[in-house]
Amino acid sequence: MLAELITIGDEILIGQIVDTNSAWMAQELNAIGVKVKQITSVSDNREHILAALHEASKRADIVLITGGLGPTKDDITKSTLCDYFGGGLTFSDLQYAQVDKLFRSFGREVTEINRKQAEIPERCELIVNYNGTAPGMWFQKDEVYYMSMPGVPYEMKAMMETQVIPKIRDKFSLPVIVHRTFLTQGIGESILSEMISAWEDALPNNMKLAYLPSPGMVRLRISAFGENDAQVASEVQQQATSLYNLIGQHIYGEGDQTIEAIIIDILRKTNKTLSLAESCTGGNIAHLLTSIPGASDAFVGGAVVYTSKMKVDILGVNPETLSNYGIVSEEVVREMALGAIQKFNSDFAIAVSGVAGPGADKDGNPVGCIWIAIAGKDFTYAKKFQFSTNRERNITMASYAALNFLRKQLIDN
Amino acid sequence: MLAELITIGDEILIGQIVDTNSAWMAQELNAIGVKVKQITSVSDNREHILAALHEASKRADIVLITGGLGPTKDDITKSTLCDYFGGGLTFSDLQYAQVDKLFRSFGREVTEINRKQAEIPERCELIVNYNGTAPGMWFQKDEVYYMSMPGVPYEMKAMMETQVIPKIRDKFSLPVIVHRTFLTQGIGESILSEMISAWEDALPNNMKLAYLPSPGMVRLRISAFGENDAQVASEVQQQATSLYNLIGQHIYGEGDQTIEAIIIDILRKTNKTLSLAESCTGGNIAHLLTSIPGASDAFVGGAVVYTSKMKVDILGVNPETLSNYGIVSEEVVREMALGAIQKFNSDFAIAVSGVAGPGADKDGNPVGCIWIAIAGKDFTYAKKFQFSTNRERNITMASYAALNFLRKQLIDN
Repeated sequence: MLAELITIGDEILIGQIVDTNSAWMAQELNAIGVKVKQITSVSDNREHILAALHEASKRADIVLITGGLGPTKDDITKSTLCDYFGGGLTFSDLQYAQVDKLFRSFGREVTEINRKQAEIPERCELIVNYNGTAPGMWFQKDEVYYMSMPGVPYEMKAMMETQVIPKIRDKFSLPVIVHRTFLTQGIGESILSEMISAWEDALPNNMKLAYLPSPGMVRLRISAFGENDAQVASEVQQQATSLYNLIGQHIYGEGDQTIEAIIIDILRKTNKTLSLAESCTGGNIAHLLTSIPGASDAFVGGAVVYTSKMKVDILGVNPETLSNYGIVSEEVVREMALGAIQKFNSDFAIAVSGVAGPGADKDGNPVGCIWIAIAGKDFTYAKKFQFSTNRERNITMASYAALNFLRKQLIDN
Repeated sequence: MLAELITIGDEILIGQIVDTNSAWMAQELNAIGVKVKQITSVSDNREHILAALHEASKRADIVLITGGLGPTKDDITKSTLCDYFGGGLTFSDLQYAQVDKLFRSFGREVTEINRKQAEIPERCELIVNYNGTAPGMWFQKDEVYYMSMPGVPYEMKAMMETQVIPKIRDKFSLPVIVHRTFLTQGIGESILSEMISAWEDALPNNMKLAYLPSPGMVRLRISAFGENDAQVASEVQQQATSLYNLIGQHIYGEGDQTIEAIIIDILRKTNKTLSLAESCTGGNIAHLLTSIPGASDAFVGGAVVYTSKMKVDILGVNPETLSNYGIVSEEVVREMALGAIQKFNSDFAIAVSGVAGPGADKDGNPVGCIWIAIAGKDFTYAKKFQFSTNRERNITMASYAALNFLRKQLIDN
């Protein structure tokens, strides 16, 4: 079963927005055994959209289209869909009721431009958008199914999860595919590859391994195909056991887990609390933790201390420690962590101080040199890391290294 | 002059990574007057890569390829490029020297798998990758130019900026294209569209307007084509003046400017400092500000106070204010801002307290209800916002609304 994704919009081709929808949709499709053959981005242009639809129909059984459905005037997608599938536009009372409801919830009247959003091609089956004003549309032509959805990510996602995926499962008899993704932190792609090369070479033919690196992390994904759910899952489990034997100490989780969610989860279950003392990570660790719903059960707060004076005033770091050892030092980062535990009255704390870049610091520490400490009521551990020369990467890599440093300590206790 | 972008990698088609490279490349190409016709993502498969290259060569003058060049075994791009362009692989001493240098800088020996990265197709001109181990390759076939680059974003970007873009400028005589992007905050796409519809309808034929919405922001981009640089720029300037007359109060900047960079810039120029008191934004405002190199000149620090107790202990909020008015209230957010100014000894402060979601708070405030205060030595302003029902969007929207709230105050003074 093959799918093709088409994203419509000059905004993608002029590079003003990143197409995050396609990756998400591909994940959802893969999870139900639909393979994405190709992802294509085309312009808001009738001929180009028509050509892309024709091409895709030759390669795929399902074509998912996003974008080109906003309320502004540059959108021509709906009339082009009428050209492709035949028929004209018709006013949908069901879709209009949704637009009206949404405007009312914001205390506004429906504008003329939004009223037009209730017009849909008469050959389509409406897929109601409960989160926005642009309609979803489901078509069939010859043996191929087409779904057109708005480009706004959370509108598209809700539509996929509640309506499109169930429809696809319903229309097709799908093969068995099992994915399992192992999340590693703190070890590079090439070192990892050498550690598992013998295992990788011996993988059976129905399995494929992919390396998915991002700053500070490498995800390893096994994809296995077969006829029988339980059989394939058990084959994958066997390989997973071997993989854990080889590199288990570097695997912090699986699938969609994040280190931040794992930490919040461990802390909640043990009724413990965490605080932060961030210098060069500048609030990013706090941001990662507070992105998790329910973080407030375990995360009490943090200080972003971007100057020496603030490290003293807010966290109680000893001014002599700063002058004797420098801001980026084991001693300072330890005192920051202990200061956070005391000021925020938490069970654990993470502290980070280093040189994010672009320049070296005045003590001569190079860009990417970052000290991280973790502390509890009865321990402090500090470790020096040397990351990259890029500010953004350093902030990200230090944040994940710090979180994983704490995670290892939490599960060891 | 048309370009086509091909990204190679199963990791994109299975949705484990988002293709951020294409948007960035499209921006760079547009800026020099090269229009991107299509963006295509294909799998790590010889036939599929060959088909995509053939298709692209029919539509474009320049084909930029990214991905498929990591050190791990699933990469077949280089041998496929040999199939397409003819010839075999050859060992590049120049590329090897780069790999060797990079490994030495990390205190490591070159591994066998990385040594292979110095092999390049003999028909290509090497584009040295100064930031990684995978080579860049420049090919010509018939009248079409091809560039293959690694998929690691910062490696690709450095290669594009210093080598690929100059080469394209050198090979082609490019038309004049002027883009100008106006950045608005706090006003929705459809309202904006109604405010400027008469102006938009009267735009000359050589200009195109695009709406580029993201949470809390809409960017408006004029693209103008012509023969003469100064002439086109002056035509765009004329339209820009009209646009500022219509919606100037909603425009916070242009082009690649960010609110956070604008704020740091204003503060540095006036020798003023800023601190933060974040509750529901959870460190995201601190993270945005500290992403800017040199933020430490103006940003002294912030407190992420995720519990009532921390609002009292760290920021000195009066416990009676909390019990009388509730955590999400004008009174609390004002005291948080004043507390930050005092504790961090800064000239200005931003404070945020609200309900990020997913659930309403215990006082019955709905998800998305967020109070923001800004304070200076002689003022405090507080304002209530009602954002969305989505936690991630609420954090983002509140962060930008807070930054823009401060920005307006800074430029009014």
